[in-house]
Amino acid sequence: MKQKKIVLNEDQMPTHYYNIVADMPNKPLPPLNPETMDPIGPEALSGIFPMELIQQEVTTERYVEIPEEVRDIYRKWRPTPMYRAYELEKALDTPAKIYYKYEGVSPSGSHKPNTAVAQAYYNKQAGIKKITTETGAGQWGSALSFACSQFGMECEVYMVGLSYHHKPYRKIMMNTYGADVYASPSNRTNAGRKVLAENPDSPGSLGIAISEAIEMATKDEKTNYALGSVLNHVLMHQTIIGEESIKQMEIAGDMPDVIVGPFGGGSNFAGISFPFIRKNITEGTNIRCIASEPSSCPKLTRGQFRYDFGDTAGTTPLLPMYTLGHEFIPAPVHAGGLRYHGAGVVVSQLLKDKLIEAAAHDQVEAFEAGVLFAKTEGILPAPETNHAIATAIREANRCKEEGKSETILIHLCGHGYFDLKAYEDFHAGKLTRHEITEEEIKASLDKLNIPELV
Amino acid sequence: MKQKKIVLNEDQMPTHYYNIVADMPNKPLPPLNPETMDPIGPEALSGIFPMELIQQEVTTERYVEIPEEVRDIYRKWRPTPMYRAYELEKALDTPAKIYYKYEGVSPSGSHKPNTAVAQAYYNKQAGIKKITTETGAGQWGSALSFACSQFGMECEVYMVGLSYHHKPYRKIMMNTYGADVYASPSNRTNAGRKVLAENPDSPGSLGIAISEAIEMATKDEKTNYALGSVLNHVLMHQTIIGEESIKQMEIAGDMPDVIVGPFGGGSNFAGISFPFIRKNITEGTNIRCIASEPSSCPKLTRGQFRYDFGDTAGTTPLLPMYTLGHEFIPAPVHAGGLRYHGAGVVVSQLLKDKLIEAAAHDQVEAFEAGVLFAKTEGILPAPETNHAIATAIREANRCKEEGKSETILIHLCGHGYFDLKAYEDFHAGKLTRHEITEEEIKASLDKLNIPELV
Repeated sequence: MKQKKIVLNEDQMPTHYYNIVADMPNKPLPPLNPETMDPIGPEALSGIFPMELIQQEVTTERYVEIPEEVRDIYRKWRPTPMYRAYELEKALDTPAKIYYKYEGVSPSGSHKPNTAVAQAYYNKQAGIKKITTETGAGQWGSALSFACSQFGMECEVYMVGLSYHHKPYRKIMMNTYGADVYASPSNRTNAGRKVLAENPDSPGSLGIAISEAIEMATKDEKTNYALGSVLNHVLMHQTIIGEESIKQMEIAGDMPDVIVGPFGGGSNFAGISFPFIRKNITEGTNIRCIASEPSSCPKLTRGQFRYDFGDTAGTTPLLPMYTLGHEFIPAPVHAGGLRYHGAGVVVSQLLKDKLIEAAAHDQVEAFEAGVLFAKTEGILPAPETNHAIATAIREANRCKEEGKSETILIHLCGHGYFDLKAYEDFHAGKLTRHEITEEEIKASLDKLNIPELV
Repeated sequence: MKQKKIVLNEDQMPTHYYNIVADMPNKPLPPLNPETMDPIGPEALSGIFPMELIQQEVTTERYVEIPEEVRDIYRKWRPTPMYRAYELEKALDTPAKIYYKYEGVSPSGSHKPNTAVAQAYYNKQAGIKKITTETGAGQWGSALSFACSQFGMECEVYMVGLSYHHKPYRKIMMNTYGADVYASPSNRTNAGRKVLAENPDSPGSLGIAISEAIEMATKDEKTNYALGSVLNHVLMHQTIIGEESIKQMEIAGDMPDVIVGPFGGGSNFAGISFPFIRKNITEGTNIRCIASEPSSCPKLTRGQFRYDFGDTAGTTPLLPMYTLGHEFIPAPVHAGGLRYHGAGVVVSQLLKDKLIEAAAHDQVEAFEAGVLFAKTEGILPAPETNHAIATAIREANRCKEEGKSETILIHLCGHGYFDLKAYEDFHAGKLTRHEITEEEIKASLDKLNIPELV
């Protein structure tokens, strides 16, 4: 019998998050105050995050224990399954062995609840009653809505207006978990009203929605804000994925030569890869970890490592990151979760130090990969996930050319049940590749009025 | 640690389907030729089904081995998980212990692939190149499309026109698996053209779609037809759910006092309950098995046990079943999978013999149950599934009143990710209860021009 599915029991679920900062040869550079250009400390975050999360943001401890209350909720879907993709291997006629770790079994359908549950828990412990957040395509908003429902907390989601009207299913899911969802820009905040005064028909953007959510969190001391990627503590919460994957690969009697994960702000990719990078650093293994990004938003493969703002409006501290410039507006590709101009600080430093790699694919190539995956393995992946599958196929084809039986692990971070419109466009030949030119990238970076410090 | 999830390894997956006919005290009555009223044999099915399935339809063997090729595909998602619903119990403040067996982890999101894969396999073995079928809400069509993609077979789906236009996501999913999907009535068949000639704007019906699919299967000897419920072999393929559930309950150190499953044609309910009914018959246990139906289509709770046609147009053999009359048109409730006028022959006989029970809920009560389930357990159930949850809540409340700590097992047969519009209507207070009167049921049954033989 060919074993397809490697499952873990609940008592095999990891008890600690892994903090890669402890093992990084070069630690991340500090955030800077954009006015003084001086390093700023974690206390700047205290108005909108609970102290426990702020401490996690800056800790250099190697492991952080997962609270039992959080693990108790994780056990609704964790440990998640790992699969051997025999049918995909056969279709590719490759000597490579392909595995995938599947996070789509979570209640909201992606890896996002791993950090949403932890963030809701620490906020609850701090006496917070309500959490605000932004969401684009809706994955993060759904996850936080679910997490808040588990702790009896209120959740207020500012959803990019265009998505709010075009992707109503995600909104209804959030409502079902009990969250209030508002189309952004809204009339509820100064930030929203300002945008609407200038353009009553504004379709909104992630940057505007972030401003609205933070404004509401700042106004009320029992209300905090939560972010779904980019920050260190968010990435750390996702490492439970990679910790489980190590155990599962050991059960399979195998170990990856190559790991691929989609890349938006970094939490998805960090989740699967960081524990394996620890093996590289501390045990001398040589596992290649490849971040897959859309070629329409190629910050890792074609961006610049420098200080830049985390948001479009330029209101955050300056962060050292691979970036296309914070005013870069990616084309409206279907992988909404990957449409972010920069990369998280930790992941950026790892790429600079060549501890990880990056690859880019246009969305037509990504959906070709996703449809082949659906036909062979049965699961319809999210558009974001399709990018990682495309990288895996590229690597499997290389293995075929080189006659090597390498082991490839894909992070299958979410299903595409809410993204069928994207598949319809693909089937109808309506997807565009959205390649961007060197000139466009240079123009966006040239706009930055920030000293190049690194 | 409270164990929430009871998982089985692949090598614990059942190797045989269970055929309850072997253990029934009263065997099902034969189908009749409507013209002669003589019993008809299985050979009548040979034009559209492969011989192996026809033999399974009439076998009295207790167990039928699951082919290794079928088990190999099942292992993509089977064994499916069972969960203890601690948070739902807490919200209900009940002494009852509630478990649920979750089939939504299958590629197409419900229990339907259990039989779709088996049917595709036996057709492939018989040299068939293409399978036709009908689908209403799309669950069955998605499952068969997936199954055909696994065996490299063609799949042609006639989708009720109204659903085709209102639920495009299911259609796109089928296309992604490689199936051809046509709105029914279509211009491809005599049956479809006849309807369109009379009413060019016909929204279609399951009855019309069945006629179209069968017509296409009859025309080509390399093309067969597949049905997603009602027939004996279809119900039998689903028993793998109950066989796994017995093992999981044993691991939990528990055994159900009550099992609830949604009821449309019978395959869903049969899947979870038949192996437990075997325990009742052969081991003397007393496990109550309750079929949950919508009060808008109450064939089990308010219908009549008699011979009737299986389809609206009256083209099938006459079958002994609980029925509301084959011309009964259920109200357009969101649980499309439960909108069928009759019950499968085996399940009908079991109800007549009081070996199972039935309960009915209107869709408002069903969605109230589903939303509570989503908020507590995290999974958004399909509208069909919500009916079983409503029955479970009714039983849990009874346990509370009686101070009994009974064990309740819910068949959570599918997720509702494609049914969010129904949740939106519920949140907006737009769902109607669709109660029907005794007069309406009597009028429908009075239309039957068929002798009452039982």
